[in-house]
Amino acid sequence: MEKIILGIDPGTNIMGYGVLKVADRKVDMLALGVIDLRKYADHYLKLGHIFERVSGIIESYLPDEMAIEAPFFGKNVQSMLKLGRAQGTAMAAAINRQVPITEYAPTKIKMAITGNGNASKEQVADMLRRMLKLDAKEMGKFLDATDALGAAYCHYLQMNRPQSDKKYKSWKDFVAKNEKRVNPLSTTP
Amino acid sequence: MEKIILGIDPGTNIMGYGVLKVADRKVDMLALGVIDLRKYADHYLKLGHIFERVSGIIESYLPDEMAIEAPFFGKNVQSMLKLGRAQGTAMAAAINRQVPITEYAPTKIKMAITGNGNASKEQVADMLRRMLKLDAKEMGKFLDATDALGAAYCHYLQMNRPQSDKKYKSWKDFVAKNEKRVNPLSTTP
Repeated sequence: MEKIILGIDPGTNIMGYGVLKVADRKVDMLALGVIDLRKYADHYLKLGHIFERVSGIIESYLPDEMAIEAPFFGKNVQSMLKLGRAQGTAMAAAINRQVPITEYAPTKIKMAITGNGNASKEQVADMLRRMLKLDAKEMGKFLDATDALGAAYCHYLQMNRPQSDKKYKSWKDFVAKNEKRVNPLSTTP
Repeated sequence: MEKIILGIDPGTNIMGYGVLKVADRKVDMLALGVIDLRKYADHYLKLGHIFERVSGIIESYLPDEMAIEAPFFGKNVQSMLKLGRAQGTAMAAAINRQVPITEYAPTKIKMAITGNGNASKEQVADMLRRMLKLDAKEMGKFLDATDALGAAYCHYLQMNRPQSDKKYKSWKDFVAKNEKRVNPLSTTP
C-alpha cells in the first residue's frame, strides 16, 4: 500500500513544504521546498500565492493526506489572525481537492521525531536527514522546510502506531477494531 | 456601469452574506442569507463548507468585488486563530475566482451606514432596510447577515466617495490621479 503525505508549514513570510512517499515501511522524500512570500507586499497576494502553490503541489504529487504544522498560540492576536488566514488558505486548497488534513503542534512534531519536544530546528533537521537518508547540503538549503517535512514524517509515524496504542471508546469499540487480536480465527478483515 | 458587490461576514459559527447590485447610483439587494456552521462538529468540515458556499455564491452572482467584515482584534489568540482560518478560507474562495477583496472593520461599517461607529446591530439593520427599501420581515429573518450586507453597502459608499476625499501620497500622486482636474484640457483618460 502506497501513500503520499504532503507536509505544510504555512507561515506568513515563508511557507515550507515536504512530500513523502510511504510504501509499506519504506519512506522516501519526493519533494522539499520553500516559498518566499516576503516579496508580496499585499496581504491578499500572499494568500493567493499560498492557495495557488498548495493547489499546484497537490496537483503535482496527488497526496493522500496533508499534515500541517500548526502552532496553537502566539505572541498576539494580530499575528494569530494573520497566521490563521495563511493556515485557512492552505487548508482550503486541500479541502478543495478532497485531501484530508491533520494538524500537529510544533512540540508534538519535535517529540515524535527526536524524542524531545524542545529540540532545536537543527536537531529535527539532522534526525530527518538521517532517517530519510538525505544529502546534508540539500537539507541545509531548505532549513525553512524542516517543519513541513517534520509534519509529514510525524504523520507517517502516527499512521504506523500499533493499534494497541490507540484510544478506544469502550471494550466493544476495541473488539470491533481488533477482531483479529480478540478472535484470531475470525475471517472478518 | 453595473457592479455586483458581495459582502461576507465569515464567522466560525454563522456566516452571513449579502449581494448588492449597483447601477449608477441605484442600489438593489440581490441576495441575503446566513449559513449555519454549528451543525458541523469538525473544524475542517466547517472550513470546507465556507469554501464551497462562498465559491457557490460567487458562481451564482459573479460579483465584481468582495467586501468582508473583518474584526482586527478579539478576546484571545485561540479565537483569533479560528476566525483567521474562517476569513482565510472565504478569501481563498474569492482569490481563486479573481474577485478583489476589501476589508472593513466593524466600526467603519457602522460609521459609514449610521454615522455612529458604536451603533447597534438593530440600528444598522434598520438603516440598511430603509436605504435598500427592504421588507422588515425579510431583514428580520436574516439579522445575522446584517454585518455582511453592511460590508457590501459600506464598500458601495466607499466606491462613490468623491476623489478629493481620497488620500494622496504627494502632490505628484494627486496630479497623476486627477489629471483632468489639474489640467482640464488634458486628453489623458
